Amino acid sequence: MAPPLDQRPNHSLIGVPGSRERLATPALVLDIDAFEGNIAAMASWAEKHSLGLRPHAKTHKCSIIAKRQVEAGALGNCTATLSEAEVLVDAGVPGVLITSTVVTPDRIERLVALNDRASRLMVIVDDPANVDALNEAMRQGAEPLYVLVDVEVGCGRTGVVSQVDAVDLIDKVTASPNLRFGGLQAYDGGVQAIESFEDRRKALDSDLQALREVIDVMNRRGTIVPMISGGGTGTHEIDRIGGVFTEIQAGSYIVMDSIYNGCDLHGSGAAVFFTSLFVRATVISTAKKGFVTTDAGLKAFSVGSGDPQIASGAPQGATYTFMGDEHGRITFAKDGHGMALGDQVECIAPHCDPTIALYDCYHVVRGDTLIDIWPIDARGHW
Amino acid sequence: MAPPLDQRPNHSLIGVPGSRERLATPALVLDIDAFEGNIAAMASWAEKHSLGLRPHAKTHKCSIIAKRQVEAGALGNCTATLSEAEVLVDAGVPGVLITSTVVTPDRIERLVALNDRASRLMVIVDDPANVDALNEAMRQGAEPLYVLVDVEVGCGRTGVVSQVDAVDLIDKVTASPNLRFGGLQAYDGGVQAIESFEDRRKALDSDLQALREVIDVMNRRGTIVPMISGGGTGTHEIDRIGGVFTEIQAGSYIVMDSIYNGCDLHGSGAAVFFTSLFVRATVISTAKKGFVTTDAGLKAFSVGSGDPQIASGAPQGATYTFMGDEHGRITFAKDGHGMALGDQVECIAPHCDPTIALYDCYHVVRGDTLIDIWPIDARGHW
Repeated sequence: MAPPLDQRPNHSLIGVPGSRERLATPALVLDIDAFEGNIAAMASWAEKHSLGLRPHAKTHKCSIIAKRQVEAGALGNCTATLSEAEVLVDAGVPGVLITSTVVTPDRIERLVALNDRASRLMVIVDDPANVDALNEAMRQGAEPLYVLVDVEVGCGRTGVVSQVDAVDLIDKVTASPNLRFGGLQAYDGGVQAIESFEDRRKALDSDLQALREVIDVMNRRGTIVPMISGGGTGTHEIDRIGGVFTEIQAGSYIVMDSIYNGCDLHGSGAAVFFTSLFVRATVISTAKKGFVTTDAGLKAFSVGSGDPQIASGAPQGATYTFMGDEHGRITFAKDGHGMALGDQVECIAPHCDPTIALYDCYHVVRGDTLIDIWPIDARGHW
Repeated sequence: MAPPLDQRPNHSLIGVPGSRERLATPALVLDIDAFEGNIAAMASWAEKHSLGLRPHAKTHKCSIIAKRQVEAGALGNCTATLSEAEVLVDAGVPGVLITSTVVTPDRIERLVALNDRASRLMVIVDDPANVDALNEAMRQGAEPLYVLVDVEVGCGRTGVVSQVDAVDLIDKVTASPNLRFGGLQAYDGGVQAIESFEDRRKALDSDLQALREVIDVMNRRGTIVPMISGGGTGTHEIDRIGGVFTEIQAGSYIVMDSIYNGCDLHGSGAAVFFTSLFVRATVISTAKKGFVTTDAGLKAFSVGSGDPQIASGAPQGATYTFMGDEHGRITFAKDGHGMALGDQVECIAPHCDPTIALYDCYHVVRGDTLIDIWPIDARGHW
């Protein structure tokens, strides 16, 4: 396995002025000032509007960051996987909501064991047999496991489709002696990145109709729905205006990426959060004319959401393109522009979540100095 | 950080019959029979044709695999990064050739330290100032560091472009008292995946002209070029026919992927190597009609080389598409087809190298049984 962080070359640079420019690359860099500003901005937005905030850890996969979010007022963290939830719970993060179903016997066993050591663990369901399996696996009198019914709102992944199925499933969870009905979850992944606020608002409004109908039925029956969890960085302000969700699962706002930088998040045209995440790359060849080659390619960035955007280090107008698994190319806009061997650039990730998942750690910088290295301790599939 | 392998859920499945079907997913699976067949096939091909084989570890990033290749007759391993080289050298792999330039003072210092504990370490150069920097960093009388001059042959990443520059650089390396001239490297990444053997042959033949001219000058001058390293899985047979290279750097042949499965590697139309690498995914939602949702998305596969190809576990004609960071979709070809919650599929990776780089370990299987877990110990950038 990769060596511990304190045995890696960059560890000796902590606290050294100018060390940001000297990192062994490709390196994932977290600008602490922008990062802390984003955490504070979302926390104060949620507080101002009396909305719950349960940020999604699938973005950061890092228990240090999860704890910082909770310290700033978040209810807990969402996770996309059971293994992420295990890492966060064992690091002491309360209120973990697993936003995927847990369906196999081996994993249900792990979920039950995790619940015993967690504070208010939650999981979603979209299948009656899965509710039975969870109920059977839970021991009577154990720490309660909160189960949310997942409702399809246009994401096309998990979630029951019809109002009837949703209501039946809520009844089934409620009737399961070893489970507690936690509420509803609905995530509309498809609309998060629509650039125009108004277009995004309209798309979400239409997608949420199914969820509203389920809530209406529950209200008419007098069934209390303890919470309705959903939303994301792209829609959080629209989710607030719509008034359906009791808590927001936004994740990307802490770091921001090219996708969300292109979205008008609050309809004002103004940036609400600022990029705190960068990938640092080093020029390793200047043998060609008009471009230089770096050490950061397809293994250092997410692919499929465009090219990395150069934030600093290169002459004006230079562009970054992938040149295979381990190499990138910086192409200059003007003749005579160039960079020297060993020069570094910082790029904004096209898509933050899968980029972060490539790395074992954040290089936390304040200004030009590396101040800490945080393990991405919830990365890795198992 | 991720827990040690022996503390992960899948570890307890080693040796359990049927455990391949029960792995916590997404899981990277290595079919040992196909894998060993590929290693033997390439080793015997190289031996038959009296060609050196220095397989590229950027594919597997695993010291266990590097050692198996050396045991089967390989000269050593190539690595794309200094950190990969550090892991392999410290695991006892001889003959490591770093196929990227090492240019910053911090990294050159690590390279010199690595050379002291390595057996025949090699690195490439494409810049005169870098040759000086390497020569100055090496102590007189230390273990010799072998330096190969990198020649551009159409890959457009590293490598000197002109014959004059190449010859000058060879002279500079040869004249550097603390370095040893190791030979030439040339890698033509752009032609590796051309599907037709004949088209690939023609493209490579044209690209290699620059390299041939450099070799001609060396021969006329009577300068001995100790080795000429290059080639890949796509071109290894053409490289052999061309007679330029003394050793081949192929990497993907050990696992194969959708890209290379589509290439006629020896011009005979017959498969030469067989897929040994799979990504295993679990069905986690069956709430929709016509498709099911799995737990393996953009964080579980390389992206940009098409969709994963289902190898087993799904009804005939089913297809796999990405549904975001953590989810995939299996769409059925026929009405009435379906899969149950917890069912698993195995997919062929679209592109093996960046897929492997997402994972911490291989789940090594023989038939339906997990027989071992191998750490991908050279993964991670630092």
